[in-house]
Amino acid sequence: MQLTIERSALLKSLGHIQSVVERRTTIPILSNVRLDARAGTLGLNATDMDLEIMETVAGDIGTAGATTVPAHTLYDIIRKLPDGAQVSLGVDGEAHHLALRSGRSRFNLACLPADEFPAMSAGDFTHTFAIAAADLRGMIDRTRFAISTEETRYYLNGIHLHATTSDGVPVLRAVATDGHRLARCEAPLPEGAAGMPGIIVPRKAVAELRKLIDETGMDITVSLSESKIRFAFDDLVLVSKLIDGTFPDYERVIPTGNDKVLEVDSETLGRAVDRVSAISTEKSRAVKVAVEKGLITLSANSPDAGTAVEEIEASFDAMPLEIGFNSRYLLDILAQVEGDAVRLMMADASAPTVIRDVADGSAIYVLMPMRV
Amino acid sequence: MQLTIERSALLKSLGHIQSVVERRTTIPILSNVRLDARAGTLGLNATDMDLEIMETVAGDIGTAGATTVPAHTLYDIIRKLPDGAQVSLGVDGEAHHLALRSGRSRFNLACLPADEFPAMSAGDFTHTFAIAAADLRGMIDRTRFAISTEETRYYLNGIHLHATTSDGVPVLRAVATDGHRLARCEAPLPEGAAGMPGIIVPRKAVAELRKLIDETGMDITVSLSESKIRFAFDDLVLVSKLIDGTFPDYERVIPTGNDKVLEVDSETLGRAVDRVSAISTEKSRAVKVAVEKGLITLSANSPDAGTAVEEIEASFDAMPLEIGFNSRYLLDILAQVEGDAVRLMMADASAPTVIRDVADGSAIYVLMPMRV
Repeated sequence: MQLTIERSALLKSLGHIQSVVERRTTIPILSNVRLDARAGTLGLNATDMDLEIMETVAGDIGTAGATTVPAHTLYDIIRKLPDGAQVSLGVDGEAHHLALRSGRSRFNLACLPADEFPAMSAGDFTHTFAIAAADLRGMIDRTRFAISTEETRYYLNGIHLHATTSDGVPVLRAVATDGHRLARCEAPLPEGAAGMPGIIVPRKAVAELRKLIDETGMDITVSLSESKIRFAFDDLVLVSKLIDGTFPDYERVIPTGNDKVLEVDSETLGRAVDRVSAISTEKSRAVKVAVEKGLITLSANSPDAGTAVEEIEASFDAMPLEIGFNSRYLLDILAQVEGDAVRLMMADASAPTVIRDVADGSAIYVLMPMRV
Repeated sequence: MQLTIERSALLKSLGHIQSVVERRTTIPILSNVRLDARAGTLGLNATDMDLEIMETVAGDIGTAGATTVPAHTLYDIIRKLPDGAQVSLGVDGEAHHLALRSGRSRFNLACLPADEFPAMSAGDFTHTFAIAAADLRGMIDRTRFAISTEETRYYLNGIHLHATTSDGVPVLRAVATDGHRLARCEAPLPEGAAGMPGIIVPRKAVAELRKLIDETGMDITVSLSESKIRFAFDDLVLVSKLIDGTFPDYERVIPTGNDKVLEVDSETLGRAVDRVSAISTEKSRAVKVAVEKGLITLSANSPDAGTAVEEIEASFDAMPLEIGFNSRYLLDILAQVEGDAVRLMMADASAPTVIRDVADGSAIYVLMPMRV
């Protein structure tokens, strides 16, 4: 293996790669990136056995060949080379070391054999479709904050994706919940996604995918089966195992009969909740929302710190109501409202509240109340 | 107590105050800021019993009076109020709560009596002098990185300041060391500092002082005694207890006979050391510096990662020499070299090396070698 490659191209790819490679791993080769020099391109890939990333970068390939080297160390070296540098990589016959040269820098990196690098079995994908980067980004952003971090509820540790219909229109739907709040977002069902199985995409895959989407404005090709999902970008592929579990029947959690409808400027509400929560205890984060005709009164109190009250004008015509929320959960939802107004549909102080962006029907949020 | 004050002025001052207040404290009132409304100004002060900060802010004072409220909570509230807001603060006769109003926000903050707030005994200062912000900033920056974090060597947990002479010229000198490296920086002795005791300013006071210097370009008035130091800015005063210990006789640690003199471009050396250290183990951070006529060869190796070598042209005329350094310590020193060239004066592989900025005679650094 012998090749020359531009530092900037290699750095960009290693930035993606090192993010997937775990810092601590009991299997040494999982700390490594696999380098595969073929005609005109260098392939890089890494895996944590659940999530795999593959990228190809244009390079001037002298001799084809493959090896694996420590990913974080290689990234660190390339990052520290000067802007505009050319990097030469070479492995001799014995393949114990990768020789890296650039300017007057020479590194020898310990290799492990490329054929010992674990490959996620290719397997078959049953469904393939293209989705616009903006649609996928929207579905992730509107739901990922609600992903559970409780490891015992592993089936909630990701975003549930499935094909369904909404008012008779076929949609691709993303759902996440941690039992305290639920977020659901949908986009028009892409061609090829009809009949896809309901799947759960794990948190780490969601996080890596979300970072990659920010670098592209293009369509992303999604392939999936019951056990795996594959996201294909231009020169990059991300493959993740799916969470092997059943996502709960979330539809029955979304109330349909909440008839006390409150509309308020979303930013005004968010700022007020943020201020009032300065008083609520670190642990509960509780804020009380009292609603009467035309007015919301937010309040919080803590035995140590004192009390807070703030009033906001709002559109509300039903019977007065008092309800408590976790202020952080409410702020997470308000952060996803891009329109001016947010609509809260309530039943009573002990029933879940439905929240929507008045300007965007694609997302719906459910928030459990707190006793205050 | 009753007053109205601009949010921006109060926020700036509380930013200083909350930085001194410890997040966790066993004495409740130490979590509080003392507010003292007098004619035309609001005084704010806070302490952790070692470091005290006092600031005055212009305000529209209705009724004079004093109280104390939780500092981090007050800061958090003021920070979250909208830009340009006016804040009204009031305490009733009973003084159990501070009422804070701004726009439609109303807070009641739990108070503790102002007369229970600990005051560091005023005491007498034996020496007072003015020092330019740039001089004080320089002395801190050139030395603070070398402050020891070992709590058992408490007498090294700060910057040693004393008056002395350098080549017959009176100077104010700052020194810090952790036993592995030593940094010394001096400035012309300010009028009034002659005969001042040698003192040790603790790390936290140094950190707070450094942040405050960045906000001013003015002279700072320093007053000190054997047990305390006071830094007076325009509307702000910082008083710190001094470390009650004896700073070691550092002069004997600075070699004077090192005759192997290496001069090299500082940035080039720094970048090369940074790159080569990508290979050295996380624990040792060792980098080997081999010097021969006109050339430095930097190298590092780790059993896991591999090896690194980099060559740099340099001015060197003595017998070849190999010496090892902790790369992080070397980089800390190089980060303080503002001129183009750095000079390393070495004796042998087991003796301390002296490092200087060729363009700036005010600072000198001593670095212990490592066995490599």
